[in-house]
Amino acid sequence: MCPRQHPPRGPGACRRGSGLAYRSLRPRPLVRDPDGGGPGRLRGLPGRRGDRHGRRRTRRVVRHRGTPAAGECRVVIRVFARTCGPGPCELSPEESHYLVRVRRARTGAAVEVLDGRGAIFSARVVAARPDRAILEIEGPIDRPAPPWDLDLLVAIPEVAATVEVVQHATALGVRTLRFVETARSHARLPSPARLERVVRSCLRQCGRPTMPTIESVSSLDEAVSRSPLPGFVGVPGARPASPWSGEAATLAVGPEGGWTDEEVARLCAAGFVPVGLGPWILRTPLAVAAGAAAVAAVRGAGPAA
Amino acid sequence: MCPRQHPPRGPGACRRGSGLAYRSLRPRPLVRDPDGGGPGRLRGLPGRRGDRHGRRRTRRVVRHRGTPAAGECRVVIRVFARTCGPGPCELSPEESHYLVRVRRARTGAAVEVLDGRGAIFSARVVAARPDRAILEIEGPIDRPAPPWDLDLLVAIPEVAATVEVVQHATALGVRTLRFVETARSHARLPSPARLERVVRSCLRQCGRPTMPTIESVSSLDEAVSRSPLPGFVGVPGARPASPWSGEAATLAVGPEGGWTDEEVARLCAAGFVPVGLGPWILRTPLAVAAGAAAVAAVRGAGPAA
Repeated sequence: MCPRQHPPRGPGACRRGSGLAYRSLRPRPLVRDPDGGGPGRLRGLPGRRGDRHGRRRTRRVVRHRGTPAAGECRVVIRVFARTCGPGPCELSPEESHYLVRVRRARTGAAVEVLDGRGAIFSARVVAARPDRAILEIEGPIDRPAPPWDLDLLVAIPEVAATVEVVQHATALGVRTLRFVETARSHARLPSPARLERVVRSCLRQCGRPTMPTIESVSSLDEAVSRSPLPGFVGVPGARPASPWSGEAATLAVGPEGGWTDEEVARLCAAGFVPVGLGPWILRTPLAVAAGAAAVAAVRGAGPAA
Repeated sequence: MCPRQHPPRGPGACRRGSGLAYRSLRPRPLVRDPDGGGPGRLRGLPGRRGDRHGRRRTRRVVRHRGTPAAGECRVVIRVFARTCGPGPCELSPEESHYLVRVRRARTGAAVEVLDGRGAIFSARVVAARPDRAILEIEGPIDRPAPPWDLDLLVAIPEVAATVEVVQHATALGVRTLRFVETARSHARLPSPARLERVVRSCLRQCGRPTMPTIESVSSLDEAVSRSPLPGFVGVPGARPASPWSGEAATLAVGPEGGWTDEEVARLCAAGFVPVGLGPWILRTPLAVAAGAAAVAAVRGAGPAA
């Protein structure tokens, strides 16, 4: 099922057959300081990041013992490009850097191009310059989105969990992600720029061509009023999701510490149905992933379809 | 829905109302080297880890702007104890350290005790010594497990993803987790001791009282022969999971790069049904979380029930 795009291994082919893969543990190049410090002390090159902490860059050899050659591997490189049509397409400096330096694509490599507006194209690298890569667009790829929409209503978790929530929601096809302040939520979201970087990286990994909408809402009532029904609110120990039909649904996931009883009552009064994901307490990102998958799985199932 | 157990805030009560929480960014104490190096260089205490990299320990104040006091918060502290019954119960040095130093529980704090064999007890801290804490067991907690079992068959992912897979599978109630070598899988699992630490930490977080079984299997055929049917194999773009009934099911999740066609054919020949989780490519841990939740959600739904 789930190919990760990392680590990249050259133009299109997968080097797993060689039994060796190199992984760079530290992204910053550092050198041993020739005249400073005690034995074994390390210092960064002047003017580069990493200086202060003296981090060492190492390359670790990961040997895949006993793994046979796998032939053609389905790890796909994806980049963003604003204007896409048949013919040559020049990438932005950021995307060129990602393609050539991060993913190490070479001339002739097959890639997929996301135009950010819902279209995907197959393409081939024509010029692999790290500042200005050029692709030859071959044609559109047909990968239809699900015929229904899922909105998420999430009480703001801590920043690291927020990033995970955005990653999971993006890969699972959530249309709109509403972060809401509740009695037990955090109040600080990562910056929009950071969230956009997270989403773009996730779109590259999962191949979804459209960005989800991310909103920050200060009141639960307002968030509920913007969310389509049927709605499901995650409550530990509640019954599993019941089948639903229609074009769109909403899943509400509570904060660390859970919803207050009053919040659950307000959500239920607005038409939300409590739904459980087993008897155990899930972290917010896992509850988002499991809840979104469960709600999607029961669409059209059973007597309510 | 999903209370995280971190960060701990004293005996039973939640300090969110104060609007302040302290988070220690680095777990190792380090001091500024009084007579060495240039300005601002940091070095660890001799003999402690962190020496070499000169990491700095900082405490960041996270202010929850605008978050109202939440009253009683449902963040629960859980510890393991081998022998549990009514009366006093002495914790091991590791669990005592976790309770008193990590979770900062004080005398009188309410905790839950997992005995590792399927029972949960409510208890109160009687003596909060960091090397030998003593609890007073109050009584058993009834939190029944789901009436069905889910087995997972996962092609070995990279180590970090393996840890995530184990976390997700544990919290979602997976009974047996079989890691199998496939054409595109990695071949190295984390050590059993590390996986056990991951599972124990996850059980403390989610409140599940039983450990899942984790197996490493070298051949797909052997793994399949040990797995109960109905079986579902994750294939991007396949149809959603169909309803099933019975006592147990298996979900098979492929490696980075996906199953080979031959592996999917072997799984299908053994009775597995392809199941999709939307058109996008999911990372292995997310596929495990979403797949397990989807398979659980459709049990008993629809005409097959």
